[in-house]
Amino acid sequence: MSIRRGLFLGRFQPYHNGHHAVIEQIASEVDELIIGIGSAQWSHSFDNPFTAGERVLMVRRAIKHLPITTYVLPIEDIQRNSLYVAHIKTIVPPFSVVYSNNPLIRRLFEEEGIPVRRTEMVERELYWGVEIRRRMVNGEPWEQLVPPAVTEVLREINGLERLRQVTASDAVVPQDLRGGGSA
Amino acid sequence: MSIRRGLFLGRFQPYHNGHHAVIEQIASEVDELIIGIGSAQWSHSFDNPFTAGERVLMVRRAIKHLPITTYVLPIEDIQRNSLYVAHIKTIVPPFSVVYSNNPLIRRLFEEEGIPVRRTEMVERELYWGVEIRRRMVNGEPWEQLVPPAVTEVLREINGLERLRQVTASDAVVPQDLRGGGSA
Amino acid sequence: MSIRRGLFLGRFQPYHNGHHAVIEQIASEVDELIIGIGSAQWSHSFDNPFTAGERVLMVRRAIKHLPITTYVLPIEDIQRNSLYVAHIKTIVPPFSVVYSNNPLIRRLFEEEGIPVRRTEMVERELYWGVEIRRRMVNGEPWEQLVPPAVTEVLREINGLERLRQVTASDAVVPQDLRGGGSA
Amino acid sequence: MSIRRGLFLGRFQPYHNGHHAVIEQIASEVDELIIGIGSAQWSHSFDNPFTAGERVLMVRRAIKHLPITTYVLPIEDIQRNSLYVAHIKTIVPPFSVVYSNNPLIRRLFEEEGIPVRRTEMVERELYWGVEIRRRMVNGEPWEQLVPPAVTEVLREINGLERLRQVTASDAVVPQDLRGGGSA
Amino acid sequence: MSIRRGLFLGRFQPYHNGHHAVIEQIASEVDELIIGIGSAQWSHSFDNPFTAGERVLMVRRAIKHLPITTYVLPIEDIQRNSLYVAHIKTIVPPFSVVYSNNPLIRRLFEEEGIPVRRTEMVERELYWGVEIRRRMVNGEPWEQLVPPAVTEVLREINGLERLRQVTASDAVVPQDLRGGGSA
Amino acid sequence: MSIRRGLFLGRFQPYHNGHHAVIEQIASEVDELIIGIGSAQWSHSFDNPFTAGERVLMVRRAIKHLPITTYVLPIEDIQRNSLYVAHIKTIVPPFSVVYSNNPLIRRLFEEEGIPVRRTEMVERELYWGVEIRRRMVNGEPWEQLVPPAVTEVLREINGLERLRQVTASDAVVPQDLRGGGSA
Repeated sequence: MSIRRGLFLGRFQPYHNGHHAVIEQIASEVDELIIGIGSAQWSHSFDNPFTAGERVLMVRRAIKHLPITTYVLPIEDIQRNSLYVAHIKTIVPPFSVVYSNNPLIRRLFEEEGIPVRRTEMVERELYWGVEIRRRMVNGEPWEQLVPPAVTEVLREINGLERLRQVTASDAVVPQDLRGGGSA
Repeated sequence: MSIRRGLFLGRFQPYHNGHHAVIEQIASEVDELIIGIGSAQWSHSFDNPFTAGERVLMVRRAIKHLPITTYVLPIEDIQRNSLYVAHIKTIVPPFSVVYSNNPLIRRLFEEEGIPVRRTEMVERELYWGVEIRRRMVNGEPWEQLVPPAVTEVLREINGLERLRQVTASDAVVPQDLRGGGSA
Repeated sequence: MSIRRGLFLGRFQPYHNGHHAVIEQIASEVDELIIGIGSAQWSHSFDNPFTAGERVLMVRRAIKHLPITTYVLPIEDIQRNSLYVAHIKTIVPPFSVVYSNNPLIRRLFEEEGIPVRRTEMVERELYWGVEIRRRMVNGEPWEQLVPPAVTEVLREINGLERLRQVTASDAVVPQDLRGGGSA
Repeated sequence: MSIRRGLFLGRFQPYHNGHHAVIEQIASEVDELIIGIGSAQWSHSFDNPFTAGERVLMVRRAIKHLPITTYVLPIEDIQRNSLYVAHIKTIVPPFSVVYSNNPLIRRLFEEEGIPVRRTEMVERELYWGVEIRRRMVNGEPWEQLVPPAVTEVLREINGLERLRQVTASDAVVPQDLRGGGSA
Repeated sequence: MSIRRGLFLGRFQPYHNGHHAVIEQIASEVDELIIGIGSAQWSHSFDNPFTAGERVLMVRRAIKHLPITTYVLPIEDIQRNSLYVAHIKTIVPPFSVVYSNNPLIRRLFEEEGIPVRRTEMVERELYWGVEIRRRMVNGEPWEQLVPPAVTEVLREINGLERLRQVTASDAVVPQDLRGGGSA
Repeated sequence: MSIRRGLFLGRFQPYHNGHHAVIEQIASEVDELIIGIGSAQWSHSFDNPFTAGERVLMVRRAIKHLPITTYVLPIEDIQRNSLYVAHIKTIVPPFSVVYSNNPLIRRLFEEEGIPVRRTEMVERELYWGVEIRRRMVNGEPWEQLVPPAVTEVLREINGLERLRQVTASDAVVPQDLRGGGSA
């Protein structure tokens, strides 16, 4: 395969300027870029408010100016670390390099002999996702932390209202609400 | 559908007077009532000590005096919020209104265009389930918090002995015991 | 949602001229087009020789000339018909019309109140997929039945060799080989 | 347990006079009767056209005249024979006897030491379900083969229209349609 | 890894002289041998009558004379071909060569760069499993086709009685009995 | 069954001297011993760093001196307590006694009428697994807490390097890293 195709993984809850800077950097190093939307099956919680399809929409609109071919693909969690790389290799086009700073992700790909490169964004990425959702719930300013296309999609899908409701009206701490309405 | 059929969801670990008061209230507003027993696949833990079948027995006996047709049906967790409403619609007869105070449950049904009504019982329901199990484990009085039929069923199935044993003999805090007997 | 976004579903084993004609037709009727690659988790069999990622590659290259925004997204089978529509709605961006001639697919979306339109291609599509794979296995001409981009991808991934091997060296009839090498 | 509680399993696609005769017979031998609706997760196919909830409705209405307590409970297939009995014991109230003529079902319960009794209905039950659906698809008379309550429910849920559509307009033979609309 | 560890896969329903000859051959070529018992989760059907644990017992007793270290390990089907090799690599100790004549198995390991060798037994292995079970059901002689240890285990677990019962009393053709006792 | 076959369950992350002492004790009480490796599907995390196959290797090498027949078998978590015993009975050869101090494990087997015996090792077993992994991550001495065979296997599979990397380079606390590399 002579095309250099890179893979970048994230949950994008929501896609924000931290992701954006990294992706623009990677785009200058590869011929084609696969963006895997992880935890695709989760939604409607504080940790994962938006569906995979909604996140596809955010990312696609935010990166449409990139000069290279991109693939934005939902990836369901497989919940078995030892199958994670095989799972991803099945869902996305062939790739020759993975971009990640996550030690587990790095290890899993390295054990399969796939090159992994670091990105500039280290710790702040994790902070950003939680912080942006916290601001959304509490009515504090967040728009400047995401590309304008994301704000637009969130308005179209009524995203903030959902985030606030699933986080509960009177508490920021998300609850475990599995299986019903009462204990 | 001219029959007004309502849906009420709970885990009923165990069914208690809090549930009972709400269900008697709802029963006066609908023609038929579906009671969904959530987290049906879990059992033998402090959070979910009783099987779905045992909970069916508790609820059925406790509500047999109600003057309307009732459906008491186990509902397994599906663990994907976005499929939860479709899952429930498949398992239970058609319904036209859901009774719930849980913000997530409310949101999920509302996104599908299904009417949701509040019940009188707000916060105390959650408290009750945990509190009753705590009392059972510690040998404190709990019978007055549940309908007599529930006490009867718990005696038939040896429920307290199981709850105490799975909670561990020397600790109230439940342990994560998955996969075996030693670390 | 003022954007008319359409959904077209297929397995694309492989993407062929029958799909291509339909997609070009649909592309003239909508603002944006979602192409869902069904049975995404299957591969390495006569019925489903190519992985989801390989099929993403085929479709993306074959339709890159289309003047509208397209989303090419893998969709795993969920194996419960009653959850199929909810599952798809989660994985792909919001859409307002589905294009399908399959009676089951049509029924499932119609029960959820989603408009479904017929396409020109009726029976022949089913025939094409099987016929093309049969030709590939038997060494008969097939390139004229698919867009040039598909031939290119199949060469890159060594697709014919895999198809022939999984179909077995001495029989066209695919075998059920689950779980091991001997009975 | 001094209550004799019996278990009868079926798919009830739809509930018909063959099931009805057996259930009336069993009802005269036990104190309480559990009716398990098997293959609860399947629907929208020729083999399993109706959802679990719709089948709950059929059975409940058809047997409401029985003088004993009944439990009509959906049971999802677990697809591992060796877990089937444990799965059922979890979902339904405790029972002391199973009614079945199916050799596999009989074997599985017998290996767990649970008594199994034969019913009068031997081979014809299998025939009835398929035959009734075949008649529904082809517009031949079928109402006399089911209790009036079933005809009523099928009309309420538009059951025949669904059965005909999922069976395809031009063929009685059901197709395997998994994963999308084209091959 | 300086130890040459080989992997051989089978379903062993039951373990027979065809398997035995191949395993004795392989044992002379490797330092250690892993025998994977495929389709481990299935049992109680004509195709897969015996549980994984029962098959472990058969194989272990039949090969206890081998002079090398052996690992007899159940392997559940994963039902996604693209994850099969990663799944096996997780469940069994590291291995450097696979023995198989099955074209799919060969292909899957070869795509992962793992060497695969042919065994002497080609077609007859498939025949043997079905033929032996057919003879067991019909009361024809079969003991000479399996090692004595297998006959011994089958007697201990009452294996023939189960096989005959799940195959149905009046038909050799296995039925699809999923989900309940009536159609 | 005249053979006394015992079952002992553990996760063995890693196999250590605490397990070893208990197993040598049990080996003096039974004819054959089954060692079930629980949580078989998990790996590459601080809690479960090693794959099932790697743990099979550790245990097998460490107990090869035992004078009785042993079965070392991976057991995947089934995540439904009520099916746990049926699941295990399927995967392993028939057994007549279980050795466990875990109250949940004891309860589950006792409810199925299977005898359970206590072992000498009470609380310390849990401590040992966590403590050994903590020492490995922090570079403190741990070899004296495991049999020499385990040290050997860990060296062969590069086990410490993996444990350290998945635990993250700058923190002992394991992170939840599911689904991707950024929030």
